[in-house]
Order: sequence, then C-alpha cells, then structure tokens
Amino acid sequence: MVPPPHKAETELVDPSDSSPVAIKPVVSQSQTESKPMALDLSHHLSIESKIRQKSLLKVSSSYLARDPELLSLAAGLPSPSLFPIEKITASVAIAKHESARDGLWKNDGLLPGMRRDLHKEKDSSLKGHSEYDLSGALQYEQGTGAKQLLKFLKRHTEIVHNPPYRDWDCIMTGGNTHAMETVFRMLINPGDYIVLEEFAFPETVEGLKPLRARMIGIDMDAEGMRSDSLELVLETWDEDARGGKRPGVLYVVPTGQNPTGATMSMQRRKEIYNTCVKYDLVIIEDDPYYFLQMSDYIPGQDTGAVQVPQTNDQFLASLLPSMLSIDTQGRVLRLDSFSKVAAPGLRCGWITGSDRFVERVLRHNEVGLQFPSGASMAVLHSMLTEAWGQDGYLDWLVNLRAEYTSRRNTLVSAMDKFLPREVCDWVVPSAGMFVWLRVHYAKHPHKDNGVEAVEKELFEAGIDNKVLILPGAWFKVKPETSDVFFRATFASVSANDMAVAIERFGEVLRKGFALQT
Amino acid sequence: MVPPPHKAETELVDPSDSSPVAIKPVVSQSQTESKPMALDLSHHLSIESKIRQKSLLKVSSSYLARDPELLSLAAGLPSPSLFPIEKITASVAIAKHESARDGLWKNDGLLPGMRRDLHKEKDSSLKGHSEYDLSGALQYEQGTGAKQLLKFLKRHTEIVHNPPYRDWDCIMTGGNTHAMETVFRMLINPGDYIVLEEFAFPETVEGLKPLRARMIGIDMDAEGMRSDSLELVLETWDEDARGGKRPGVLYVVPTGQNPTGATMSMQRRKEIYNTCVKYDLVIIEDDPYYFLQMSDYIPGQDTGAVQVPQTNDQFLASLLPSMLSIDTQGRVLRLDSFSKVAAPGLRCGWITGSDRFVERVLRHNEVGLQFPSGASMAVLHSMLTEAWGQDGYLDWLVNLRAEYTSRRNTLVSAMDKFLPREVCDWVVPSAGMFVWLRVHYAKHPHKDNGVEAVEKELFEAGIDNKVLILPGAWFKVKPETSDVFFRATFASVSANDMAVAIERFGEVLRKGFALQT
Repeated sequence: MVPPPHKAETELVDPSDSSPVAIKPVVSQSQTESKPMALDLSHHLSIESKIRQKSLLKVSSSYLARDPELLSLAAGLPSPSLFPIEKITASVAIAKHESARDGLWKNDGLLPGMRRDLHKEKDSSLKGHSEYDLSGALQYEQGTGAKQLLKFLKRHTEIVHNPPYRDWDCIMTGGNTHAMETVFRMLINPGDYIVLEEFAFPETVEGLKPLRARMIGIDMDAEGMRSDSLELVLETWDEDARGGKRPGVLYVVPTGQNPTGATMSMQRRKEIYNTCVKYDLVIIEDDPYYFLQMSDYIPGQDTGAVQVPQTNDQFLASLLPSMLSIDTQGRVLRLDSFSKVAAPGLRCGWITGSDRFVERVLRHNEVGLQFPSGASMAVLHSMLTEAWGQDGYLDWLVNLRAEYTSRRNTLVSAMDKFLPREVCDWVVPSAGMFVWLRVHYAKHPHKDNGVEAVEKELFEAGIDNKVLILPGAWFKVKPETSDVFFRATFASVSANDMAVAIERFGEVLRKGFALQT
Repeated sequence: MVPPPHKAETELVDPSDSSPVAIKPVVSQSQTESKPMALDLSHHLSIESKIRQKSLLKVSSSYLARDPELLSLAAGLPSPSLFPIEKITASVAIAKHESARDGLWKNDGLLPGMRRDLHKEKDSSLKGHSEYDLSGALQYEQGTGAKQLLKFLKRHTEIVHNPPYRDWDCIMTGGNTHAMETVFRMLINPGDYIVLEEFAFPETVEGLKPLRARMIGIDMDAEGMRSDSLELVLETWDEDARGGKRPGVLYVVPTGQNPTGATMSMQRRKEIYNTCVKYDLVIIEDDPYYFLQMSDYIPGQDTGAVQVPQTNDQFLASLLPSMLSIDTQGRVLRLDSFSKVAAPGLRCGWITGSDRFVERVLRHNEVGLQFPSGASMAVLHSMLTEAWGQDGYLDWLVNLRAEYTSRRNTLVSAMDKFLPREVCDWVVPSAGMFVWLRVHYAKHPHKDNGVEAVEKELFEAGIDNKVLILPGAWFKVKPETSDVFFRATFASVSANDMAVAIERFGEVLRKGFALQT
C-alpha cells in the first residue's frame, strides 16, 4: 500500500474533489484496470437476501433522471418548505493538533480547542442537490446514504485500504450493530453455522441467536483467532456429526478485538484469509477500532508521552493492512463505523465489499433502515468535507489514537503497579479499548468449584469492593473455557478512577487467592 | 376522548413536565386504574422474536444504578471528551401561525417566519444526563431511544390516543419503514399469511416478500379496507386449500391510505377491530398521515381558504379515533413517524403497544438499529420540549394540515377542471398526500388487451406527454384488478406544476379514449 503524499494545508482542499493530489499514488487508472474482478459469491446469499427486489418507487426516479421536463405527481415526498427545521449548525474540533507533529505528542487532557462553525441552511429549491444542503438532509434519501458523504467515504476507503479488485463499492449503514444484522441476514439461513472468535462481543452473539445461526468459536491467542485452529475445524468438518454443512461465513474483529484486545499480525491476517479462500468462506471484517492502533507501551515511561507519526504517509504506513486490503476476490465485507472515531450517537457507518454484495445491502436498506439520519450525515459531511478534508480526517485520527494510547498506558501502568503477577497475566493491547486479564484459576483455593464459579466469585467480590470489571463468561462463544478472564476498558474512565479501580481489583485478587500482601 | 384544555402560552411550559394542566382531563389516576390490562398475545410472536434475550451489557449498567460508588471498567463507551462535535444548533419554525386562529386560515405560501435558536452544548460531565445534553446525544443510548424525548412522545400519545388499557408503552424507531420491518419480523414466520389492503405501499410488499410472508389483499372501497370482505376471508379460511393457518396479523393504513388516499370512518375502524378480536389478529396500524386529516373540499372555493379549528380541543375532537384508541386488549401495534409531520431525513418514529410487545422490539433494537440518531433526537427534543411543548406541537400540526389541505384543494380543483369525467372518477381524499384516480378501462378502445395493458399504455402516454403519475399495478397486492388506477400526489409539487401536470394527463386520457375535446 502506497500512502498518499501529505498535504500540509487541509484548508485549501476543494471539498467537491477531495485530495486530488493524493489520488495518483494510491490508485492510478492503470492500476485499477489491472485489478481483477470480484468472484461471483452469490451462492452465499441467504434465501431472504436472494428474494429481495429493486424498489418500484426507486424505478420511478429513473424516469425523472431521463427527462428533466417531466412533471412528477409520483413520489410522495413531503414538501421541504414544510420542514420545521430552518437551520442546523455544528461546531467541530479542528482536526490537527499543532503540537502533535514534533514527534512526541503530550497529553494535555484536551483535544484541540479551536472550533469551526459549519452552517447548513435549507435551500428553497427542490431540485439539484449538487451540494448537500439541509433540505436534502431532511428529505428522503437513497438507500446508499447521501451520495456526497458516500463519495468522501469511498475515497477514504481507497486511500486507506485500496481494495485489490475492481468492482468494490461502499454503502452507508446505521453503525456496525445495524451493519452486522444486515450482513448476517444476507448470508445466513436458520441452522447455518458461522465461525467466530472463541470470545466475542455479547451483542454479536445475541444478534445471531434469533437468526438461529449455530456458532463455532475458534481458539484465540495473543494475535486473536488462531489460523491453525480455524484450518482444523474446517478441514475436519463432518456434516453428519455436526448436522449441517461447513460454515460459509467467518466473523472476525481483527484489530483491538472486543473483548480480548487482540490484534492480528499481517501474517495471521493472510493465513486466515487464505483459509477462507481454500474453504470458500465469506469474511465479515468488523473493524471499528482500526484507527486506534497504538505505539508500543514502555513500562515506567510517562503514560502521556506518546510517539506519533510525523506525516500522514507514516501514519498510514504504520497501520496493519485490513482484510479488505488483501482481498483479491471480493470475499470480505468490511464494516466501518464512526462510533469509535467520532461519536456513537450519530449511528452512522459503512460497508465495503463487492458491488454484488453491496447491491443486496441496498435492497435491504430500502425496506428497513432506509438510510442513516440526515442530521447525522449533514454534520459528518460538514465536518469531513468542509472543515477537514481527507488529510484533515487522518490528522484527527492521529490525535485520537494518541489520546487512546495515553489512556491505555495509564491502565496498563496501574495493572503493573497493583495486580499480583503471580496469579494473573495480560497482553498489552496494541489497539482498541480493552485489556483482557487472565486469572490463573488453578491456583485459586476454590478451584474445585470449576472455572465459572471462581470467575463469578471474583466478579462478585469486585462488586463488593466497588469495582465493576466484566467476567469472561459474558463473552464466551465456546462452551468450555480454559481459564478465568476479565475485560477492563480504558475508553472513558479518568486516569485517577482507572488507578483506583485497578487497585481495588488487585485487593480482590490478593484476598481471593489468599496471597501475602 | 376528552381533549386537553388549550394553553395559549406554550413558552411557559416546563419542558421537564410537559403540559401538566392538560394531564387531568385526559387520563386521571382513577381512569388509569379502571382500565383493563392487555391480553397476553405472546403466542403471536415469531420464532425469531421468542428467542431474543436481554443484552448482557445492559445488565452491567444495573450494577452501576444500584451502587453509585462503583468504579466501572465495564462499558466500552468512547470518551465524550473525544467527540469532535462541540455544539449543535437548530433553528426551528415557531409552532403557531398567529393569523391561523381567526377561524379561516389563508395560505400565504409561507410557514411562520419567526425562528428560535436552540443550543445544545456538550457537557463535560459524564454522569447524570437529567436533561438531554449533547454528550448524551452523541453517546451510546438505550434501545428505547432517549428517555427525555420518549417521555414527550408517551405524553403526546396519551393526549391524542389515550390507549384504553393500562400496560401500554412506547419505543422509538428509525421511522415507519424500519418499524414495519421490526414488527413484521416479530410476528411473522416464513410462510405465514398476513392480511393487508388490496392496494399497498410498494415498500411494504417489497419488505414482506423476503420474509416469505404470504399476502392476502382485502377489497377496498372509499373508506379503505372493507370489513365485510375481511370477515369473509377469515370466516371461510380453509387451511388445506390455503396451505397454511389463518392470518394472525393485519396491516392497515387507516388514514389517508397510500396509495388510495382512503380514510376509514369510525364505524369501519370498529368493525375491522372487532373482526380482529373475533379471529385473534394482531393489528399493525401504520398511521403516518394521521394528523393530515383535512376539512371538506368545496368545489369552486378558493383553494387556499381552509377552515381550521379554533382551539386544540376542537382540533383533537375533529380527528378520527385511531385503532389504538379503541384497543382495549393490547392487540394494536401503532406506528407513528416524524417523516410526514416534521422531516423524513430525521429517520425517527415510535411504536405504541402493550409492554409485552414493546419489550420484544427493545430486544431487537439492541442488536440492530440500537436507537435513532442522537443528532435527530437532540433536534427533535429541542424543538418539541424546549420550543414548542405539547400544545405547541398540536399548533404546528394544525398549521401543517391546513397547508396540505390547501395543496389537496389545488390538485382536486385541477382535476375538476382538466380531467374528462366520462372516463374517470375519484374520491376527494380527506387525509394524507394522495388522490387515487380510477380510469374506466372498459371504455378504452384497447380494452381487449386487458386492464394491465391499458394502464401501461396510458402510463407511457403520460411519460410521452411529460407527466409522471404512478400506475395502479405498482401498488397491487391482489393479483386480479377490476379497473385502471393512477396515484397522484399533492405533497411537494407547486400549485402551477400540479395544474399543468393534470392538464397534460387530461390530454392523455382524451387522446387514449378518443374523446371529442
């Protein structure tokens, strides 16, 4: 992946033609032409998804597109002149932290304080939303999401991931939980098996159960899902014993996995991808923490002192490649979200995949979500295209990951200080929002009660000692568990509270394991 | 239904306790206690819906609620201090048209021009969102939607519909298309039959097909779905002949139906409801046009001169009762939306029903939509509770329906003027956004080609004559059709364009039927 040249003056970017300077090094015309076309993987579509048809009402707009003189009594759109919202204004942070690019970012507890006011006013005209005005944002929208914002996101995806096949596309979603439901329904019939990590986000599991998907949890190590375990499960799949065919879908959170915090190395990503090629699995790459990849933790160093890349080229080069970026066949459906990099309340994200799959999502959107909130899209569009531009957005992400890195350092340094290493261990996460604490249950006085009982006892002792830290059982996909685990987050807790909370949990462990303090 | 007393000074309303004056006449404590409890209709739940479980991560918040001293490393919420949006401001129209309450509203082509600026700023505090601030709007939210806005909507529902059973509740949705998908999935297993009107909104049909619901279209007349036809279908249901059990769900748009513009009388509503009680059907009341009920059309009168109620009491008394308002058993799921009364781009609405059903919707929201956009909810919350209040919102609706009434008058008066009555007829709609034009195909020279061919010929002749008006076939649920139909909308077309478009379609009919002009 060749990163685009850094542009120092983001204010000069023409929002209608984002980062034209950057486009050539990333994907030249000849590069695009030399890319292969995606495979036809439509045999993976669920019965439900195959049935979906193009919306008739969307067809009617094609007549209008063909003949601008046509007077329409067709679409039942309410009149924008009757929308009661006259203006929406958003003030956004400036993207670039001026002090950040001296090579060492210093956490001063504040994001850049300068603000830029962005105005969107309702246009009285009903036609020609060449720019994304408020009457457009408040009106019915295409199932793809607003094309002006989608254009920015496609360009962003091209800059960061440069999918190595030709016919890829993006479509907007209501965030990754909505996107998950959409792609699960697109690919899974009741009774089908799906492969995921042995520990997973509870809402993923809770979303799959009503679809009657049968879940196979694959062993994990410090790099997340183990490719050898995946290979073994697929290779030795016995349809009769399992009562169903080999899984056709793999769900994975490759970066800063929730709950384990694990990040897959480049080698691991390639192994998992190749195994999915070998056994014909579609890969759902749920990757909301992608840009929260962090610099190394150095024990004893000031937790607020974080190495930052000097340029956006260096930033992009420092990121691990996504599954999408190594997908030459169009078998990855990548889920991106603004929830971790802007604000979850906006309920906005996007799916990238082969246009065959993206078209099926569009058909679903048309009879469900329809499109993300226009208020959310208008705010994002203003921020991303008018205030920041492509390079400015990368600047923002650089700052953001420095903030989370500092928080990670704070939590891990508290763990170093307060947790008894003789009964627990952890891998310092290199991305995301979580640390996964392994507790050696075999050393626990009540080990005869079993893993779950010891975990529950420690969890409840935590509550009694005024600290809430989530037990591994809540995240379990595989029925059997080898050890006791806890998930701790550093996302939104103050440095002081983190230290106190960890100190309290240290007390719980010492007491539970009857250690000398 | 006893309407609340009108409060002249909406600005004095305390938003945290909306319209306290109005609460007593509508639902007194003793009235609530005398209401019955909803029936347990959980046998109607689909397999998918029955499986849904409470989200584990939501459980963790119950620990925090119990012990405020608990330090949490649990929920992976991003830090609001890292949200890049510092402020959102909305300017909204004032709700009340000062000139409107002299009894005759005069269309001056403009909504009230005064505006009120509403500010929402991010609160640095992470705790205690007693009011709905921007950090709350940008953060993860409960699956019910923001409780502050939900409170307003429940009170509004109580004032307007006063559901006659005790354990009803509301939950927010992403608008009625999203709500439809949600309740369909909650109530329908693949292969199940569902009853709806013989003509329906295409997206309803397109949403039901992938769920493999089998649709029965019930005959309609000027008052919408015919109760005798419904009774006949249910009474004579033959499981063997139909290959499935009697429908357990009825979907209906009782007010300003799309596409026919039909509105059910009070008598018809009661008949349909009683039939659903008799045969144990759940009723999905999709009612986005409820407040666009109109005063009578008087041929020859100035189209902009619209009778308006003098008070909100009179306004509420003038509205037909909803199916919800006559539902003593909790068998109605009512879908309300802001799309037709505020702005569709906000993608926000709500479902009202028995709390058993509402809880199932919540479980689905948690693993799908999650909640409507916080940007949308914040704008709506400001407008509804801070600027308008309950009475102000009713003022707004009075103005809005006057606007749409004037538009309806314009379209119908053009039809009076330009369409050849010898080959077509129509019922003047008393609600909604649509007029349904019946064309007497039996008089058409090419009638031997069949209904659909004649309809298609006229549709295409319309395109050639620069007018787009949608053919009945696009809305058909029943395979057989008795006549040729077209749907015309008056929602967002200028008065001049409406007249020209109808004149053009008049030419199409005259030419097609070879009439003397």
